[in-house]
Amino acid sequence: MRKTRSGRRAGQAQPSARRTNYRQLKNPFTPQTIFSDDEVAGIHATSLKVLEELGIKVLLPEARALFKAAGARVDEPSQMVYLGREIVEATVATAPRSFILHGATPERDLEMALGTLSFQSGAGAPNVTDLKRGRRPGTMRDVTELTQLVQRFDAIQMLSPGVEPQDVPPHLRHYAFTRVQLTESDKIPFVFSRGTGQALDAFEMLADFRGLTDDDLRGRPHCYTIINTNSPRQIDIPMAQGLIDFARHGQPSIVTPFCLMGAMAPVTVAGALVLSHAEALAAITLTQLAQSGAPVLYGSFSSNVDMKSGAPAFGTPEQVKASLGTGQLARMLGLPWRNAAGCAANINDAQAAHETEISAWGALMAGATVIIHAAGWLEGGLSVSYEKFITDMEMVQVMAELCTPTPADAAAQAFEALKEVPPGGHFFGCAHTMERFSTAFYEPLIADWSNFGTWSERGAQDASTRATATWEQILADHTRPAAATGDRIAALDAFIDKRTQEGGAPPSD
Amino acid sequence: MRKTRSGRRAGQAQPSARRTNYRQLKNPFTPQTIFSDDEVAGIHATSLKVLEELGIKVLLPEARALFKAAGARVDEPSQMVYLGREIVEATVATAPRSFILHGATPERDLEMALGTLSFQSGAGAPNVTDLKRGRRPGTMRDVTELTQLVQRFDAIQMLSPGVEPQDVPPHLRHYAFTRVQLTESDKIPFVFSRGTGQALDAFEMLADFRGLTDDDLRGRPHCYTIINTNSPRQIDIPMAQGLIDFARHGQPSIVTPFCLMGAMAPVTVAGALVLSHAEALAAITLTQLAQSGAPVLYGSFSSNVDMKSGAPAFGTPEQVKASLGTGQLARMLGLPWRNAAGCAANINDAQAAHETEISAWGALMAGATVIIHAAGWLEGGLSVSYEKFITDMEMVQVMAELCTPTPADAAAQAFEALKEVPPGGHFFGCAHTMERFSTAFYEPLIADWSNFGTWSERGAQDASTRATATWEQILADHTRPAAATGDRIAALDAFIDKRTQEGGAPPSD
Repeated sequence: MRKTRSGRRAGQAQPSARRTNYRQLKNPFTPQTIFSDDEVAGIHATSLKVLEELGIKVLLPEARALFKAAGARVDEPSQMVYLGREIVEATVATAPRSFILHGATPERDLEMALGTLSFQSGAGAPNVTDLKRGRRPGTMRDVTELTQLVQRFDAIQMLSPGVEPQDVPPHLRHYAFTRVQLTESDKIPFVFSRGTGQALDAFEMLADFRGLTDDDLRGRPHCYTIINTNSPRQIDIPMAQGLIDFARHGQPSIVTPFCLMGAMAPVTVAGALVLSHAEALAAITLTQLAQSGAPVLYGSFSSNVDMKSGAPAFGTPEQVKASLGTGQLARMLGLPWRNAAGCAANINDAQAAHETEISAWGALMAGATVIIHAAGWLEGGLSVSYEKFITDMEMVQVMAELCTPTPADAAAQAFEALKEVPPGGHFFGCAHTMERFSTAFYEPLIADWSNFGTWSERGAQDASTRATATWEQILADHTRPAAATGDRIAALDAFIDKRTQEGGAPPSD
Repeated sequence: MRKTRSGRRAGQAQPSARRTNYRQLKNPFTPQTIFSDDEVAGIHATSLKVLEELGIKVLLPEARALFKAAGARVDEPSQMVYLGREIVEATVATAPRSFILHGATPERDLEMALGTLSFQSGAGAPNVTDLKRGRRPGTMRDVTELTQLVQRFDAIQMLSPGVEPQDVPPHLRHYAFTRVQLTESDKIPFVFSRGTGQALDAFEMLADFRGLTDDDLRGRPHCYTIINTNSPRQIDIPMAQGLIDFARHGQPSIVTPFCLMGAMAPVTVAGALVLSHAEALAAITLTQLAQSGAPVLYGSFSSNVDMKSGAPAFGTPEQVKASLGTGQLARMLGLPWRNAAGCAANINDAQAAHETEISAWGALMAGATVIIHAAGWLEGGLSVSYEKFITDMEMVQVMAELCTPTPADAAAQAFEALKEVPPGGHFFGCAHTMERFSTAFYEPLIADWSNFGTWSERGAQDASTRATATWEQILADHTRPAAATGDRIAALDAFIDKRTQEGGAPPSD
């Protein structure tokens, strides 16, 4: 009985009367601040001073050449680039304040601009875990299943690299990964920045599958990558190459310095933001030097370490404060930006939920355009949990629901219903309720609101156990999107076969 | 090893270098809105229309007499009071916009006003649960232990009736309950509104224990009660009596209509707020008619039911929306106000944490002055969990930490540290970090940030299991506050003995 209910909820075999649209969200909240405007201007000024006086190490010669051509002082032996503030400010200003990321269908299109809101699931983990199969290194099967789970939920608008498929050799991994994204989902795909060869392969697969010419692709963003600087003050070869390649192909990079206060960043929130902002400015500058006007997202992922052990911590007040400060810096630039939820728990328990909620609320109140790691991220990113993906989706869907309007007209104010129901009575059967009850409230994904007796009789299952049944049902119900036609898949497979025979594309160093 | 660390954290046997002050908090965030100003004015106008045209049933003759004397139309046979809007608006305007609630020492004093922030732990539950002793009806031992747990945490500023001590007969329960609050804590005590006899007993115990004259007590709030209306549109005898008694003794009532949308309130957010606001206005009016200028808090506790089963739900988007709307109404009145977190889970799992976080963030962003049920509340209030109290305290402390300032001066911006650490290096040992590392970050109460291998070796304990060790250690380390001297306790016990021999004070109907 319980299982049937779970399955129905999850798989939508019996559709709800309630219609939701979580595909193009606007953040309903006023962005919150942590610093005064003067303090934000001060952090920005210090970041510019860092780039100008202390410089940033750029390992890719082509990137140094671009900086040099723009007027930066470059010291080739040390690979250091000293970027004057005029160069940074004039160049960053050419980045668009708004652009559309295109999915396979217009319903999946997504505006990237201050004020829009989108979510990504937990990404980048070497391991994956679920209650049925345990904790294990990620494989293509897990990538496939996680893509199918994401496809089920409109409140996750972009695909992300959930786990690393370690059963596919690195020079062929991007084929398998891109194939799954295109065939199992119609959402916006992620492309790794692991060298030009892999990026160009992925662009070609994407353009062919979506029926786009090269010019179509260059003219309109259809995918994205994530660029992590090597904090402090360093951009490595694949990251610099990715910034250049994606900009030149009209596809956005999400620039994300990963600054853990006390480890790769100063121990203070303001100090970590000075560093993160400096690195983000340098990376955004590089995109615009490669292709003026290229789409790009500002971003940061700043939290702290446990100073007793050096372990990364998430869901801390320092992370929330850094998120709020990053939002202020993003709004000063006027650019869409990425922030993150996070959790360092080892199991999907109260700590895990607490840390993800705290950090996700921080990102939401900070006005982030994209909130990554919003569902499933465990162990500070060392694993993705199927069950946590499901239980976190409750949070994501509640946040998406908060973006919907709340009527306050005469009908919503319900004076007639209040007149109909006597003092001490109830509203269960009144006309106002009967007209609205089937669509009035958010329908939970995983919450069990039965009382203790009923819940105990049904097996006293905790949220993680219930979530297992939910993800199993979603996978059982999964069907490929309409865009993934047999012809397109066959053509895609032919391309992959050809490129595999040609030796694939090894990742760059 | 693990146990020692837990114990040290919890019991502060080895004090941290970090000093926090969570005793008098100011909400750092701009209150968020859900309705336009016109919509808020419209809800207020409809609430006034409800009171004037539909009326409210008031079961206590003395309360009806007060309303009648103020000019309201009263129909004695039906016990209905029809309150004109001029009476309501003029009378509510006499409630103070700010007042101080006094603890046993000035350090425990608490300002109640828009913009201040305080927390209460989960309250009002018939049952209590922990992993050592299971789920059971509440007893005085549980009341005592929960009071000791609350005393340990500065971020909980007010005492609350955690569980109902069912091992003490109702006519003596208030003695035992008040005794525990006064002897185990120096925070602001809660007094039940269960008839004048019990309230006067509690006031006398409080005044004697704190060394106050009757006039001292009347002149300065030293305790509070919570008043739930009997929605829809009804105020019962003990609640009306409480509003009158507390106002006349200068002690605040926290007025809290409990409006579940679709059950005792309309199915819409705006409709539920019309009802909740009308009831709150009527109750606040009664306090001011009993004693003009008496301290009082506005409040609401509005969530929804599951329309499939009628079960109460918490942590829903509808609850968050109602909280935001309530905040707008409170600010329109200018009064301090109470909101609540909540959770309907049956165990301290990811659902429980999620629902409490969602609703607590809603209350925080709504600008609530007091957030009740912030720690330990389970099963929609049918039980309080020792473990959930601990894991929720992590959330409460993080929220308290967000109220602290975040420096952004030159030292915090850390330019010199950024200069000291080379590209790709780390900040663990730099001077800037060394000067600050022992106090830089919030120290977690229950989070385990060790990696999966270490965590597994230590027994793979989830947050609830770790929380058990934490609450046990806190109880083991508890000492009575300095204010609870032997003489005062002896005098208190003598009073209780005398009143017990006199027959105690049965609760009113």
